[in-house]
Amino acid sequence: MFGAIEAGGTKFVCAIGDQNGNIIKKVKFPTKTPKEVIPKIGSFFKDYNLQKIGVGSFGPIGVNIEQDNYGYILNTPKKGWKEFNFLYELKKNLQVPILWTTDVNIALYGEMKHGAGQEFKNLVYLTVGTGIGAGVVNHGKFYYGASHTEVGHTLLTKLPDDSDFKGTCPYHYDKCAEGLAAGPALQQRVNGEATQLEKKSKIWDLEAEYLAQLCHNVTLSYAPQRIIFGGGVMHNEQLFPKIKRILRKYLNGYYEIKDYDNYIVPAELGDDAGIIGGICLAANNNS
Amino acid sequence: MFGAIEAGGTKFVCAIGDQNGNIIKKVKFPTKTPKEVIPKIGSFFKDYNLQKIGVGSFGPIGVNIEQDNYGYILNTPKKGWKEFNFLYELKKNLQVPILWTTDVNIALYGEMKHGAGQEFKNLVYLTVGTGIGAGVVNHGKFYYGASHTEVGHTLLTKLPDDSDFKGTCPYHYDKCAEGLAAGPALQQRVNGEATQLEKKSKIWDLEAEYLAQLCHNVTLSYAPQRIIFGGGVMHNEQLFPKIKRILRKYLNGYYEIKDYDNYIVPAELGDDAGIIGGICLAANNNS
Repeated sequence: MFGAIEAGGTKFVCAIGDQNGNIIKKVKFPTKTPKEVIPKIGSFFKDYNLQKIGVGSFGPIGVNIEQDNYGYILNTPKKGWKEFNFLYELKKNLQVPILWTTDVNIALYGEMKHGAGQEFKNLVYLTVGTGIGAGVVNHGKFYYGASHTEVGHTLLTKLPDDSDFKGTCPYHYDKCAEGLAAGPALQQRVNGEATQLEKKSKIWDLEAEYLAQLCHNVTLSYAPQRIIFGGGVMHNEQLFPKIKRILRKYLNGYYEIKDYDNYIVPAELGDDAGIIGGICLAANNNS
Repeated sequence: MFGAIEAGGTKFVCAIGDQNGNIIKKVKFPTKTPKEVIPKIGSFFKDYNLQKIGVGSFGPIGVNIEQDNYGYILNTPKKGWKEFNFLYELKKNLQVPILWTTDVNIALYGEMKHGAGQEFKNLVYLTVGTGIGAGVVNHGKFYYGASHTEVGHTLLTKLPDDSDFKGTCPYHYDKCAEGLAAGPALQQRVNGEATQLEKKSKIWDLEAEYLAQLCHNVTLSYAPQRIIFGGGVMHNEQLFPKIKRILRKYLNGYYEIKDYDNYIVPAELGDDAGIIGGICLAANNNS
């Protein structure tokens, strides 16, 4: 049996599963301070004799094992978590080998093993929700440089008919993908809940425009075989054909994508992607 | 002894060198058709008993060994080279193991071994000349997805006071880095030779702005330890402090760079970077 911890910005999910990624037991609790959260994790796992646990954490986190900050949660506004050596505390409390990566990467790993990324070794996963998170798999492994990717904060170009929009990124305002196209940006444009928006609203054209710009840059930067879109915003299926059409226009024949319908695809696993990925990471990875 | 071939878009350079990257003999000839070029390569190397040859080719090329197009030059306007199986022809003619990558990557490899990239395992090399080429090293190896990176064609945001500029990229016009900031873009803005431009000209501010935008995206996409700038345009040293200042403004505290002067640096090897890199690649790599 294997364990998984999805340490999200608002909630934690802990689970136990088998080597095929089947979830046997699962529990959720809010992301309070480490002092409150860590005992809950410990008491959930204490009755099981687990081989390994796969952990995906909100970030930014230290992922480069050659650096001193490996295993730490870095700069975060969340109380008690800034510069917290999360991996060390987990190992101390759980006494079991841990596979450590970002929350986005374990969801990507879940999609690789049981969802939209099967049979691919070069993937980009973009989750468009309260922020825009990105995970990259290259030759079957997570891409890390000095740290993990932060593609959600790369710069995009605002359209002229969007000029009044202020943007929602606290760091890059209306200049980065997250500030222009994450859930809060949509809500600011709608002036309410995006779910109430008509499918024909021009706001979806704007949203697709920015996500297509992001896909253009991701395509030429990473050359993935497939881009998988997850997150709440992407439940609006009308975005997909628009994104593909605009991406084709941007690439303009410079880079060949044989089949756009197989290149830009929705995530398949839904809310359990991270937990399934965490279990599979623990079951499959020897590191 | 080891060989190197730098197959550039306008000229070929072939060389022989030792395991330390020292060039022993070197020859240049124009990039004519394969029928004219390949015999010249063969006659240059024929008198030497080489262990391996490192080849860096203009592109786009097939670099993913799992794909059918590995070793090919792909879509190019150059006569005779489109869809040409260059690697196969080289192996057939030279009868020696060949290390195969892009022209930008062998220059990056030269900088890694004997120039500005020593002691780093995660690097981005950007060459700003007739185009903008990019090479990426991750954990000491070239980054390849389904193909090599094409960061020079990622989208940037044109500044309002540059609105009249049409851009020079035949695919992406004024929308990508190459179209806004490669040598031909500079020349179009100057309406002549950029070398005649005063150091205080506002055109350098524009140039630095676009290269800083590119650095922002490259930083958050690849998380390199260092970005190395090569190519003719970067001989204008006044660009470097401007790029660092604007990059800091864009990142705005979201991503920590401890020392900008050690993060954005000029290439050190000059015109021989590619050939030195090709020799070192042949000497060091067992693949």
